[in-house]
Amino acid sequence: MAAPVVQKKSSTQYVYPFGENGGTPSTLDRYLLGGKGKGLAEMASLGLPIPPGFIISTEACNAYRQNHRHFPEELELAVQKAIEEMERISGLQFGSESRPLLVSVRSGAPASMPGMMDTILNLGLNERSVVGFAEASENERLAYDCYRRLIMMYSEIVSGVDRLAYVEALEVIKRREGVNLDIEITVVGLKQACVMFKQIHQQRVGKPFPEDVHEQLFEAIKAVFNSWDSERALLYRKLNRIPDEWGTAVTVQKMVFGNKNNSSATGVGFSRDPSTGAPYFYGEFLPNAQGEEVVAGIRTPHPINKYQKEITHSQLESLEELMPEVYGQLCQIVKQLEKHYHNMQDVEFTVEDGKLWMLQTRNGKRTVFAAIRIACDMLQEGLIDEKAALKQIDPEQLIQLLAPVFDEKGKLAASEHLAAHGLNAGPGAASGKIALSKEKVIEMKARGEKAILVREETSPDDFPGMAAAEGILTLRGGSTSHAAVVARGMGKPCIVGCGTLQIDWLKKTVSSLEYPKLVLREGDIISLDGSTGEVFFCELLPTDSEIIQVIIDKTKPPEASALYQHYKKIMQLADKYRQLQVRANADTEVDCAVACEFGAEGIGLCRTEHMFLEVTRLNRVRCMLFSRHPEERKQAIRELLPHQKQDFAALFRVIRGLPITIRLLDPPLHEFMPHTDEELQTLALLMKSSQEQLAYVAASLEEQNPMLGHRGCRLGITYPDLTQMQTRAILEAAVEVFNEGIPVVLEIMVPLVCDEKEFEHQKMVIDKAAQEVFAEKGQAIPYSVGTMIELPRAALMAGEIAKEAQFFSFGTNDLTQTTFGISRDDGNKFVPLYVEGVPHPLNSEERLQILKEDPFQTIDQQGVGALMQIAMERGRQTRPTLKCGICGEHGGDPKSIQFFHRLGLNYVSCSPYRVPVARLSAALASLHE
Amino acid sequence: MAAPVVQKKSSTQYVYPFGENGGTPSTLDRYLLGGKGKGLAEMASLGLPIPPGFIISTEACNAYRQNHRHFPEELELAVQKAIEEMERISGLQFGSESRPLLVSVRSGAPASMPGMMDTILNLGLNERSVVGFAEASENERLAYDCYRRLIMMYSEIVSGVDRLAYVEALEVIKRREGVNLDIEITVVGLKQACVMFKQIHQQRVGKPFPEDVHEQLFEAIKAVFNSWDSERALLYRKLNRIPDEWGTAVTVQKMVFGNKNNSSATGVGFSRDPSTGAPYFYGEFLPNAQGEEVVAGIRTPHPINKYQKEITHSQLESLEELMPEVYGQLCQIVKQLEKHYHNMQDVEFTVEDGKLWMLQTRNGKRTVFAAIRIACDMLQEGLIDEKAALKQIDPEQLIQLLAPVFDEKGKLAASEHLAAHGLNAGPGAASGKIALSKEKVIEMKARGEKAILVREETSPDDFPGMAAAEGILTLRGGSTSHAAVVARGMGKPCIVGCGTLQIDWLKKTVSSLEYPKLVLREGDIISLDGSTGEVFFCELLPTDSEIIQVIIDKTKPPEASALYQHYKKIMQLADKYRQLQVRANADTEVDCAVACEFGAEGIGLCRTEHMFLEVTRLNRVRCMLFSRHPEERKQAIRELLPHQKQDFAALFRVIRGLPITIRLLDPPLHEFMPHTDEELQTLALLMKSSQEQLAYVAASLEEQNPMLGHRGCRLGITYPDLTQMQTRAILEAAVEVFNEGIPVVLEIMVPLVCDEKEFEHQKMVIDKAAQEVFAEKGQAIPYSVGTMIELPRAALMAGEIAKEAQFFSFGTNDLTQTTFGISRDDGNKFVPLYVEGVPHPLNSEERLQILKEDPFQTIDQQGVGALMQIAMERGRQTRPTLKCGICGEHGGDPKSIQFFHRLGLNYVSCSPYRVPVARLSAALASLHE
Repeated sequence: MAAPVVQKKSSTQYVYPFGENGGTPSTLDRYLLGGKGKGLAEMASLGLPIPPGFIISTEACNAYRQNHRHFPEELELAVQKAIEEMERISGLQFGSESRPLLVSVRSGAPASMPGMMDTILNLGLNERSVVGFAEASENERLAYDCYRRLIMMYSEIVSGVDRLAYVEALEVIKRREGVNLDIEITVVGLKQACVMFKQIHQQRVGKPFPEDVHEQLFEAIKAVFNSWDSERALLYRKLNRIPDEWGTAVTVQKMVFGNKNNSSATGVGFSRDPSTGAPYFYGEFLPNAQGEEVVAGIRTPHPINKYQKEITHSQLESLEELMPEVYGQLCQIVKQLEKHYHNMQDVEFTVEDGKLWMLQTRNGKRTVFAAIRIACDMLQEGLIDEKAALKQIDPEQLIQLLAPVFDEKGKLAASEHLAAHGLNAGPGAASGKIALSKEKVIEMKARGEKAILVREETSPDDFPGMAAAEGILTLRGGSTSHAAVVARGMGKPCIVGCGTLQIDWLKKTVSSLEYPKLVLREGDIISLDGSTGEVFFCELLPTDSEIIQVIIDKTKPPEASALYQHYKKIMQLADKYRQLQVRANADTEVDCAVACEFGAEGIGLCRTEHMFLEVTRLNRVRCMLFSRHPEERKQAIRELLPHQKQDFAALFRVIRGLPITIRLLDPPLHEFMPHTDEELQTLALLMKSSQEQLAYVAASLEEQNPMLGHRGCRLGITYPDLTQMQTRAILEAAVEVFNEGIPVVLEIMVPLVCDEKEFEHQKMVIDKAAQEVFAEKGQAIPYSVGTMIELPRAALMAGEIAKEAQFFSFGTNDLTQTTFGISRDDGNKFVPLYVEGVPHPLNSEERLQILKEDPFQTIDQQGVGALMQIAMERGRQTRPTLKCGICGEHGGDPKSIQFFHRLGLNYVSCSPYRVPVARLSAALASLHE
Repeated sequence: MAAPVVQKKSSTQYVYPFGENGGTPSTLDRYLLGGKGKGLAEMASLGLPIPPGFIISTEACNAYRQNHRHFPEELELAVQKAIEEMERISGLQFGSESRPLLVSVRSGAPASMPGMMDTILNLGLNERSVVGFAEASENERLAYDCYRRLIMMYSEIVSGVDRLAYVEALEVIKRREGVNLDIEITVVGLKQACVMFKQIHQQRVGKPFPEDVHEQLFEAIKAVFNSWDSERALLYRKLNRIPDEWGTAVTVQKMVFGNKNNSSATGVGFSRDPSTGAPYFYGEFLPNAQGEEVVAGIRTPHPINKYQKEITHSQLESLEELMPEVYGQLCQIVKQLEKHYHNMQDVEFTVEDGKLWMLQTRNGKRTVFAAIRIACDMLQEGLIDEKAALKQIDPEQLIQLLAPVFDEKGKLAASEHLAAHGLNAGPGAASGKIALSKEKVIEMKARGEKAILVREETSPDDFPGMAAAEGILTLRGGSTSHAAVVARGMGKPCIVGCGTLQIDWLKKTVSSLEYPKLVLREGDIISLDGSTGEVFFCELLPTDSEIIQVIIDKTKPPEASALYQHYKKIMQLADKYRQLQVRANADTEVDCAVACEFGAEGIGLCRTEHMFLEVTRLNRVRCMLFSRHPEERKQAIRELLPHQKQDFAALFRVIRGLPITIRLLDPPLHEFMPHTDEELQTLALLMKSSQEQLAYVAASLEEQNPMLGHRGCRLGITYPDLTQMQTRAILEAAVEVFNEGIPVVLEIMVPLVCDEKEFEHQKMVIDKAAQEVFAEKGQAIPYSVGTMIELPRAALMAGEIAKEAQFFSFGTNDLTQTTFGISRDDGNKFVPLYVEGVPHPLNSEERLQILKEDPFQTIDQQGVGALMQIAMERGRQTRPTLKCGICGEHGGDPKSIQFFHRLGLNYVSCSPYRVPVARLSAALASLHE
């Protein structure tokens, strides 16, 4: 998402009214109104049934944040005016004893941040207005139920009081009344609850719950503003790359009551199935309830329609059955919204006394399976064009298409351990140790163990634990509960509403009513099939996904897989629109084959050091490094030639004429050192030397900082025979394969150059060896010689280097390491902390983010990117046709690819499995131009 | 020296005639004519007695080198014409049988390269002209002596035949004739020698010695051209930073014969004493000899005058005594030359039959002692102005003023081992193991041992050995012999002409006639006092130099040291002209005191990590690093505070108000790790933890690449208490010292910043701690906070960083490491080879230089320098008053300082002992503007 330019106006409009009779705001700017606000305003403009209200803009929030957490002057007056307008429309009065106006206060950031921001309902109730509300609504139960909820929410959100205190108080009342559920509490009980709640508030906060409804309102607005800077909001933004500067808008809206009576309800839904993409309205609702109950997953919700009822095996009555007219109206609205937004919609609604009110609409989150199906379907339906279809898919999600699943055979074998069934809220397979708290997950992850977070339900507080878990399992909640929505967003396998499971918090165990013979403890292994909702009390090894079965294993015919057909269509579209070429980093036959199947247009980085690590070869390499006699060294190198040649020939046969960039040896020296006494002894025998002598040499070869040591072309220059041998192996293999009738397109790459002279030296060695091979074989093969740009000095000297170098490939891993002065191996001690934020020096409650992103994941545009730009400009000034690519890890990162596209690179090269991600990212980069 | 711009003219003049009746060349461009050629041309223009000749320009040489070692077209014709002109002037004829013209062919590069390039004398002799020459000169002996020398020199230089073959042949003749010296050989013997020499030539080269004198001439010219690219010339240029592109000129000049008769002589001299600077003509000569014999040091030369006779204790007759008129003329000429060149001159002359001919003049090499005295004397004499005085001194040489000497007491104690006396050719004291060959020196140096090269005489071949030795001792040769000249140039202690010593090559021993009781073997320790010429057969420990005694030890009063007075004058002049400030890197009281005495204007880098390495503190630091409990960590840090405070207070008291830049802790973590089991046990006791537990933590703290690890401000950010404690220590100390009435000027420096947010974080911690200290103490001390720019990203982000940072200090050590991707610790495996040159891939006889200079010694202007420039531009754009300095090793390197001056830095900071070097370098940088 591109950050909007925030312009300071002389007289800023901070408040935007909307809704039935309230009109339509003058702007639909998402960055000003927030996503929720924009949705409401837009629905109002479509004439849909929206309770009246107003939006306080993100500008107000940012003014507040910059103003040491004080409202800007004009704001209070504007809010006051807007409230008066709502009073006028509704005929109610804010804080009135007879006909009180109740409002909700909700946050709404420009980007969707589910569960992250806070909401307060029923604002406007106090000791007097609650009586008036009870009379006006002729529903005393509703009034006191709303009142006790308001006190709890306000106390929790505005004053930070732990909700538990209120829940416990309610339990006391329920025990006293001998009931189990909140809705069974009597009016008397609810009134008692209100009294107790206000006592708790007074006790915990040190001042009474405010009777002044305007104080309620303004404190609530402040709380929403403040929640933008809460720790969990910061973390969510970090994970989702949302700028801190955006701020949140606040929506203040007239309350409607899904909990008024049995003709009332509240629900949420998607215009299509967010798991599979099937074109059916998908959702759930609770009769006689307020909205928070659905999302929180406390009561198991009803299915919205027959489709939903079928796929969830629910026995509960659907909205379609209970209120067919309302359901019909809802379906019509949802279709209208889809057409308007050209996208699948995620809506919230409330039915008050038989009347449908829309409360929210936004583009719906979906699994990748749903995303590609919906995109293809909508394209076919004529709802969207090709570009819009591509834009609907998050390239990062594509990797989930390739994620392992549990295969049917394995599941059959494990069927005796099938312990429970829940809702398939996040597809994919996960197996790991049970963790009953976020802390435990994080602890296990730190030990390198896979953890499955198991909770009764999840709350935003659990977010860090969810992010670190392999999979998520909850006992309560529906497919739109917090756990389900967040898990889908993160692409984690997730099962929710698994009601037959029980957690014993004292013993820290998990048991299943369906499977009483085994009780698991925290730390025992459990397996989730997020695609089916099945829970296994055993370890299950995941197997290949459907796409992998079609493309790689070829065990499933393409025509039998609808998923594959969608995937193929999307990839075709991506290829149509992208300008960047996509290559793969691969150095084995298998990897090369996979890369080709995923549509790589070449091998952008074929490392040769892995070829040396096989044991016989390794000993040859060691002889080379340890030898003190040039002839002995040459001999060791010569013996490597046939092996290398064989390796290269095999690769050439697999890629059949696709270009391949072979990087000459670039080992960190220490990888080749003998590590054990046995290895040293073997080497001593082989070299007819003594172990002591070799240990001495080994010590002399040891490096303080191998990253900055004797590696890359530095080895090729000090041991030119090595470069010569590798060139020979490459070209002899090329001639051999060419003579088999298979074309070979060769690029030889010199690593770790920091000066043009290094490159010139290596090029001379390569060209000389090439001439020799071609003369011997009587056959020449065209090849080009280029270099990695992976050191700051190489970038700065690019104009000189390009005089001889025919192509550049940015090694952004090393370039990031040297530009930042951070070793990737050692940076984990502080880089994660830099990204999460460290305690702020002036206020340890707040966090100060040092780096916006991990530069090893997403390219650092300002530093590393600036060097890349310098290198490309200088390189192409010398050699306008210079081909430039990138072969670091960043080659598969969507955000980085967007930058590489803007930079004018010719290609990105990434790991074979990320080729689809890169293809789509490249297309989106073109579309975003 | 700045490289000249070589412009290609459409019709280039390659040949420039000069000399008596030959006129003066149209240009005196040193880069065109070479130093020797320019000197001759200039002397001709002054009307001095110069044999006629002509200069072939460096352009011709470079055209030849670029033209695959073929002469450019016009050259041969131009040379032919110039020869004809010489024939016209001299009345002789080149190759004539009756009155043959003989010429010398000498190389002459733009910069003096003593002994590096080759010379051929007596060209023009062949089987027929030798007879004519004998008749014309009426000296058959002279003719055949010249002829045999020509054959040998030609054969050696043009065809690469080892001189030894000829020396042995001459030995055969001497044995046959029963004589010892070359000059005792009869005419018959010389004729036989010529015959034998020609046979040897034929045998070794495969073709006869050329009878065609033009072939002789052109081959000789080619040989001179080729010698520019010889290995030893390359090495000399590398050590002396002379560009390869310059090329050499060739001087062809009519021969004059110092070996004609006893009224003939040849000699060399300096217009002042090159060892001490005393204002006396200084030189030596050989009667009846040719020039090469003086320089080669084969015969012990005569002193030129009484002064020389006195200081060398020579019994031989001086020129002043032997040929008073010639000596008078010579003195007059030398004075005239000094006046003309405003510099001390190094001249060569020949007396032929009583007539004086000048053959060369150039600025004379001198010791630093001589340099500062001559500069001061000439300034006083009105010969030069202040700027010229400064320019006469090589700042790098100044360091020799501070080099250790043997003190009188030590020498007295060792007097029984005083084994020999020679000429004090290179001042300074050296003690080390005897090495009898350059190979042995290099071998010892590689083992980290100090070696003294002991040779009968040295030749250019010995150069690498001389460069690696601590000192040089030769048995033959005078104070202008190869050994003496080269050693002085390198600032090495050197004793020559130590005739009482003997080398037994078979036994590899050194013995002394003066001291028969001990025979040393190769590898035994010997000591040289290069200032007095004394050789000790024992180890002598050097002590402080005179300047150190005056300035640092204060054991010698300033007024008693003329040397100090000269030094002081030069430093005053340097301070007058320089713009760059000079600070020192110092972190102990002693170093700070030394820095102040040497005139540092502040401490540019006070590292704090050394303060942590004392054992009690070290354990505190370890507690801090190993602690897993924040409170325990804080406690460990708190306990460091009083120590740190004490350290800082002591420094502030020493520097008394000079600015001091204190860098916060930047340790490579591994330096603080417990290295032994004992250390681990101690720590375990201290921390009440188990050794196993701590070993586990130690392993987790281990880094793959400590250079790129958890260090610098990364530590300060993850452990802010550390920064807080250090700030507190600094400021509490500052308040304490300020209250003693001593001013404190403070700059606090944050290390290893790569992003502005890191700096902001640390600045907040510092400012907060400062406010606390100032409030507690009721006293505020001004301080500024800045950062090291030592990572490429910091340079690129300088505009952002300068928003908060008040100064920059370039840490060029680390910046070089990361820009090049070369660890200083590991780079020694290939950087020296890069600078020396690696075997050329296309011709292993030649070397390909990869890097012109070691970037850790002299700043890499293109890469690291470019980043510095970016940082300064961006930094000063944000903050125009931004103070910028440099505190890497480069801060004391003259060539780097020149670059820093151009870059517009405010100061350089270097090691205390290099402060004088930096002061002078800074002045020269201003003067070179």
